[in-house]
Amino acid sequence: MNGAQSLVRTLAATGVDTCFANPGTSEMHFVAALDSEPGVRPILCLFEGAVTGMADGYGRMRGFPAATLLHLGPGLANGLANLHNARRASTPIVNIVGDHATYHAQYDAPLASDIAGFARPVSGWICASTSAGTVAADAARAVAASLAPPGQIATLILPADTAWNPAEGPAAPLPRPTAAFVADAAIDRAAAALRSGEAAAILMRGAALQPEGLGAAARVAAATGARLMCDTFAPRLARGAGRTPVERIPYFAEQMVEFLQDLKVIVLVGTKPPVAFFAYPDKPSWGLPEGCRIVHLAHPHEDGPAALLALAEAVDAPASGLAPAPLALPERPTGRFNHFTIGQLIARHLPEDAILSDEGATSSGGTLLATATARPHDVLSLTGGAIGQGVPVASGAAVACPGRKVVCIQGDGGAMYTIQALWTQARERLDVTTVIFANRSYAILNVELSRVGAMNVGPRALSMLDLHNPEIDFVRLATAMGVEASRAASLDDFDAQFASAMDQTGPRLIEVVL
Amino acid sequence: MNGAQSLVRTLAATGVDTCFANPGTSEMHFVAALDSEPGVRPILCLFEGAVTGMADGYGRMRGFPAATLLHLGPGLANGLANLHNARRASTPIVNIVGDHATYHAQYDAPLASDIAGFARPVSGWICASTSAGTVAADAARAVAASLAPPGQIATLILPADTAWNPAEGPAAPLPRPTAAFVADAAIDRAAAALRSGEAAAILMRGAALQPEGLGAAARVAAATGARLMCDTFAPRLARGAGRTPVERIPYFAEQMVEFLQDLKVIVLVGTKPPVAFFAYPDKPSWGLPEGCRIVHLAHPHEDGPAALLALAEAVDAPASGLAPAPLALPERPTGRFNHFTIGQLIARHLPEDAILSDEGATSSGGTLLATATARPHDVLSLTGGAIGQGVPVASGAAVACPGRKVVCIQGDGGAMYTIQALWTQARERLDVTTVIFANRSYAILNVELSRVGAMNVGPRALSMLDLHNPEIDFVRLATAMGVEASRAASLDDFDAQFASAMDQTGPRLIEVVL
Repeated sequence: MNGAQSLVRTLAATGVDTCFANPGTSEMHFVAALDSEPGVRPILCLFEGAVTGMADGYGRMRGFPAATLLHLGPGLANGLANLHNARRASTPIVNIVGDHATYHAQYDAPLASDIAGFARPVSGWICASTSAGTVAADAARAVAASLAPPGQIATLILPADTAWNPAEGPAAPLPRPTAAFVADAAIDRAAAALRSGEAAAILMRGAALQPEGLGAAARVAAATGARLMCDTFAPRLARGAGRTPVERIPYFAEQMVEFLQDLKVIVLVGTKPPVAFFAYPDKPSWGLPEGCRIVHLAHPHEDGPAALLALAEAVDAPASGLAPAPLALPERPTGRFNHFTIGQLIARHLPEDAILSDEGATSSGGTLLATATARPHDVLSLTGGAIGQGVPVASGAAVACPGRKVVCIQGDGGAMYTIQALWTQARERLDVTTVIFANRSYAILNVELSRVGAMNVGPRALSMLDLHNPEIDFVRLATAMGVEASRAASLDDFDAQFASAMDQTGPRLIEVVL
Repeated sequence: MNGAQSLVRTLAATGVDTCFANPGTSEMHFVAALDSEPGVRPILCLFEGAVTGMADGYGRMRGFPAATLLHLGPGLANGLANLHNARRASTPIVNIVGDHATYHAQYDAPLASDIAGFARPVSGWICASTSAGTVAADAARAVAASLAPPGQIATLILPADTAWNPAEGPAAPLPRPTAAFVADAAIDRAAAALRSGEAAAILMRGAALQPEGLGAAARVAAATGARLMCDTFAPRLARGAGRTPVERIPYFAEQMVEFLQDLKVIVLVGTKPPVAFFAYPDKPSWGLPEGCRIVHLAHPHEDGPAALLALAEAVDAPASGLAPAPLALPERPTGRFNHFTIGQLIARHLPEDAILSDEGATSSGGTLLATATARPHDVLSLTGGAIGQGVPVASGAAVACPGRKVVCIQGDGGAMYTIQALWTQARERLDVTTVIFANRSYAILNVELSRVGAMNVGPRALSMLDLHNPEIDFVRLATAMGVEASRAASLDDFDAQFASAMDQTGPRLIEVVL
């Protein structure tokens, strides 16, 4: 057995069953080892941003890491933007990066670079294996590290000779880290704050936004009148019929401030106080009103759902809390073809247990509005603001959850960063329907250009935000990579195309021409 | 005048006339400033790997930097792989990365990351501007830093408030750094080594591989019998009819060792001793035979062409050296349709002063062989081994050299990393013909899999190297982004399509189905 085989068997033994990969020469022994261990499914991507985005989508849905396989520093570099999003999502990922053989490093060959330097800004844990004898143990540590609550990226750098030299065998899995208990004092403090009668909100992220945590929060809200909120870009949110409705903090700074302006108390569960996504001249960066008390119920590494349950008891909450969202599907829309009416059609057809990967930017609003009372589903949002997440995260979620329909709400600008993920959807027959909102623009930047107070804007500046010249044909792009695609220019088009996509399985793309 | 305007005017004053850009909200003032300074041409790319690859191609051809414009850490991260190649090419680039406003950093907003951390492995110089008042001077320093011989990446981090706050005005350009003189002692030592009569080679890189340096090297070779060589992946090489022929060091380690095995002396001009690209079990990493003397004539920061001229005088070289390559075009090939016969057709039609961007990997050989005596041209090769360079570098070269035809020799696997560059070719009507060698495989990895000694290779491993399922339709991909494209499945097809591409201007793509 060589080091690579000991590594792959260790991954399988710990429960890592999927490896999103874009390998090169230095990873060939790892690739060969995949045939000796059927427990790890390799999934090839044509670009590393697709690899890491899929690992993020997988990890958000499973709460357990997939492995990546990347080719030295540049391969890692291509995957960093979606690792940034994954870091902001606290997604567990075992991020494996091949390197030159240890004895080859001295020669500074063309592909040599500072791999750990590239990895550091996104990784919670980094280890460069030093010998084939330690690779298996390093892999077991990486899996455990990735699961350190609330989840993080564990980067394992694998020099080629540590993969090809002889190893003793796989390592035993390490105990899975568990979320920390919240102290009684923290629960008492939150209970006292919420009982004060002051205007209060509970702001949640992470595990608290799944049904158990939301149900407990609904009880607290019923007992105390606290508003329930989630971050603008929560990694994962359970919503739709039967789920506790939560208010999403608005994106733009001044809307955020207005939304929060009456609060005297904010109770944080797995998150931080809200701040503006960007700074703007003469606009606030801090979201909370002056004098608002910040009460930490559960930090991100602590058990948010358990803390909410304890809080419900502490405030003597009733057994049933706020009413869950009803099932209320929109009427079939008529009139204009825009993101509101398209969102209504999506809500009508969205099947139960669907997963929405949302990178619609200025086109997301309609879908999020209309699906609030649609059949129950999960939403995965753009946690780190690095566009190019939507299609890969949707793909990874589909790998993680066979049998659940995945719908990707995707802006055209962001789609082009990692469009290669469509090829993997076709290859693996992933059940993803991608809706491209083709407004031929970085539309958000047209909004931001005036919001930041840029003056004397002329044609050169505007051309930097415009995608009309030439227009991108997403139907051709998709079919070029083996994904069935169609174009919708009216509500009737979209209704028929989206309904048929929901009725079949496998990858589909619909280009919505706005 | 705000900081952004002072920056853009400073760039224009120093001679930076092109900015490859993929901006976001934090760069909106820079974008707006482009309308107040017509001296800097903005070129929009849909993905940052295209931005940085184009800046690399531009800088290699101009010997002077273009600017980039990237959006915070993730935007920089997406551009790092081609910055790695540019670092290995010693290309001057002024790499501008927007950041959150200085006072916003404390909030750790979703897009915040360690930008300098991402930049460090590729940058020779990094500066984060601290106020609008210093931005102009920082830009002048960045331009000068990028030109520090032999050229490097200067990263300027631009917090949004340093762009929008008031500034005094542009800064004056700094003196352009010049290459260091080579000491007489180094020239005497090299002359003595070459006069020893021992088997010798002169290995060159950088400016030495342009006509002046090559002409001087040809005189030295005529006087001393030294072989003339270049690195496997030279950033830029002048070749074809009328240019001094140089031998390219082979890629594979054992071929490299055989190629160099008789050498007793190697004289280095702007480069390092040859090493294997990758390590392999039981194969050498070091290229030179035991006992071979290494003589540094010119280090990379020194003036290689001048040193070669001085060396020619020191060895009493004749005024005319080795015969330059003749113009000898291949006969029109018949028989099999492969990279050899395709290369012969490329050589027949390649116009004078063409630029070849080579990322053909296993399909490059035929073109490089056949073009050795084609009309004079420049070749730009994959300096850092990070695939996804070919199409962007070709595009940047076309921006730098209007009036020169650019031909990109591109493997299908590598093409998919930065295929978005085609859109910019269409938008800017760049005169680039891209030849995709579609073997539906990471073919080099099939070679490497056995060379690294990977055993028991089964279907899962082989599937990681295979691009058949599904086959990518490059004609559709190109036309989806506005580039005229066709498919060639025979010598007649390719002959007609490539000839017509050479006769017209503007972007074209030919998918060669192998």
